[in-house]
Amino acid sequence: MITLDLSLPDTRYPIHIGRDLLDDANLILPHLPQRKVAIVTNTTVAPLYLARLQGALEAAGVAVLPIVLPDGEAYKTWDTLNLIFDALLSSRAERKTTLIALGGGVIGDMTGFAAACYQRGAPFIQVPTTLLAQVDSSVGGKTAINHPKGKNMIGAFYQPRAVIADMTLLDTLPQRELSAGLAEVIKYGLLGDADFLAWLEANMARLVARDHDALAHAVRRSCEMKADIVAQDEKESGVRALLNLGHTFGHAIEAGLGFGAWLHGEAVGAGMMLAAALSHELGWIDAAALARTERLIAAAGLPTRAPDLGVDAWLEHMSHDKKVESGRLRFVLLKALGQAAIVDDVAPEALQRVLAGPYIRRDTAY
Amino acid sequence: MITLDLSLPDTRYPIHIGRDLLDDANLILPHLPQRKVAIVTNTTVAPLYLARLQGALEAAGVAVLPIVLPDGEAYKTWDTLNLIFDALLSSRAERKTTLIALGGGVIGDMTGFAAACYQRGAPFIQVPTTLLAQVDSSVGGKTAINHPKGKNMIGAFYQPRAVIADMTLLDTLPQRELSAGLAEVIKYGLLGDADFLAWLEANMARLVARDHDALAHAVRRSCEMKADIVAQDEKESGVRALLNLGHTFGHAIEAGLGFGAWLHGEAVGAGMMLAAALSHELGWIDAAALARTERLIAAAGLPTRAPDLGVDAWLEHMSHDKKVESGRLRFVLLKALGQAAIVDDVAPEALQRVLAGPYIRRDTAY
Repeated sequence: MITLDLSLPDTRYPIHIGRDLLDDANLILPHLPQRKVAIVTNTTVAPLYLARLQGALEAAGVAVLPIVLPDGEAYKTWDTLNLIFDALLSSRAERKTTLIALGGGVIGDMTGFAAACYQRGAPFIQVPTTLLAQVDSSVGGKTAINHPKGKNMIGAFYQPRAVIADMTLLDTLPQRELSAGLAEVIKYGLLGDADFLAWLEANMARLVARDHDALAHAVRRSCEMKADIVAQDEKESGVRALLNLGHTFGHAIEAGLGFGAWLHGEAVGAGMMLAAALSHELGWIDAAALARTERLIAAAGLPTRAPDLGVDAWLEHMSHDKKVESGRLRFVLLKALGQAAIVDDVAPEALQRVLAGPYIRRDTAY
Repeated sequence: MITLDLSLPDTRYPIHIGRDLLDDANLILPHLPQRKVAIVTNTTVAPLYLARLQGALEAAGVAVLPIVLPDGEAYKTWDTLNLIFDALLSSRAERKTTLIALGGGVIGDMTGFAAACYQRGAPFIQVPTTLLAQVDSSVGGKTAINHPKGKNMIGAFYQPRAVIADMTLLDTLPQRELSAGLAEVIKYGLLGDADFLAWLEANMARLVARDHDALAHAVRRSCEMKADIVAQDEKESGVRALLNLGHTFGHAIEAGLGFGAWLHGEAVGAGMMLAAALSHELGWIDAAALARTERLIAAAGLPTRAPDLGVDAWLEHMSHDKKVESGRLRFVLLKALGQAAIVDDVAPEALQRVLAGPYIRRDTAY
């Protein structure tokens, strides 16, 4: 097991990365202010892992309230969040009851937001069960639910007490979701580490085949980079926005198709391709770099072509992005492979050329 | 105008107390990261004060989005909160758009919570229009909505950028609401300042008659005490719980009768009476002190008798209190007039005697 330390002005917490961590209650016990927890999970993860985690905690004398939610991005709503509040209040959970998120990014985001709001703030712990959640959403304290008018529009910055990333849980992950997680891994290479990007190009086949050692390295390097960026800018007033590489386009894809049609990571994959294409359009990366990006995204099993939303819909959905400031779209683009920058003065013509270009599918199938 | 300074580990903000402050945009402008605000108010306050505040801001070049909600504690719900989110998203409000709460405690709590959650945190400013909000809820950063199973169960600690308390706005306040605000003023005297308590006994008639100077002194002393306590304990891990004097009983009254039947301050008035009676039952304050408390609460126009919820309902509703820890009820009681303490080992028999005693009404009318 490797343990990274995420240090913030007001708090610090460990990120444990390893194998068979789910059965080790000692990773959780030191963080409980009282021996009572609610495990929030979903109908897909519960049959696989709930009994193991619950059993380990109960054997250590912890009272466990399981809360099982429906599965999917489409349920990342207030109504589902309210199921958590109903269960907590019905069982008289106190403000020192710890919420444990056992699931992917949707479960982590909702459980974290529920913890942020329950009695104005209860402790919580992340036990991510997808690669995407392990490398991205479980670390850094961004929590949220979706609103019909925009993804993650209602939420909080609220840090967990610990993150436990167990590689063995990825054995049961559907291949499509593994690929979706690899999108965020590729993102870290593209935005800030050319060496890691080269390592990913050399090892993508091992990752797709779920080699535990390769996955552990990818999770470690991704979490190191995320921890470093979040420590510099917890509330996303500056450098943290770099983590949104591919996400402005990606969120528009998700909103345009309806949340849940594409996986978040798939939308980020195609979104990174559009960000790279726009960077190429602006003359910052050359055709060879663009081709390398496309090969890597494709090797991860991700789409390299975005759906054709139509220019108006692209602009409409991107205008709801949380990075918009004084009405200006802000993009995270590539100055080079391994070096991203935030840009708010993209010429409309360049954007239009990308949205009319080869990285948009002209048919309707995916 | 007097300006108090509330200093917290992560932030500090001014509390302005005075006359005709509503027209002074210069109190607001320094706190706006962009010249766009949403003024959140209700159907009662809007006809009285919205145009004045909106006009002052627009004259200073600020774009204003008014959001007018239905009035009343019964609307302190997710559905009403969502009206704020809908309006913000429909008008493409960004995360640097400032929310201004123009109203009483319900508007302040909801606007603050909306600001805490909107795009994970937008700035907000409190312009309280009731005495209760001026002396209590607008200061200190507690925000929340109600849940059918408990008051203020869903919320956040989230501080405003500024608080503007304009005494002249109290001229239009219904007498019943003025009294409700005086409950919180009396609370400060009872919990921590015997001199202020004596001043209140001598000046209650002036306060009830809305003498602006007397009100300004009461608001100032209340805000000073609140600022001092919040600065010591922002997240209510200790001394801040003293501010809940009368509130454990009071919340049970509100929940037992249905939110909105009694005003919050009325419930706190009767709740302080029960807290004083329990303190007397435990031998901490004598009969003369109990009688002084009763006279002061009555002089403010507040009920000194709680409704008869029945012992089971009292215990049920109090068990949902956020101060409950490891299943134990915690009360804020009086060691003396002007000195409160947190107590978690009240003998059940003493509590039962109070709930069967003279400060519970045996008829059903109020």
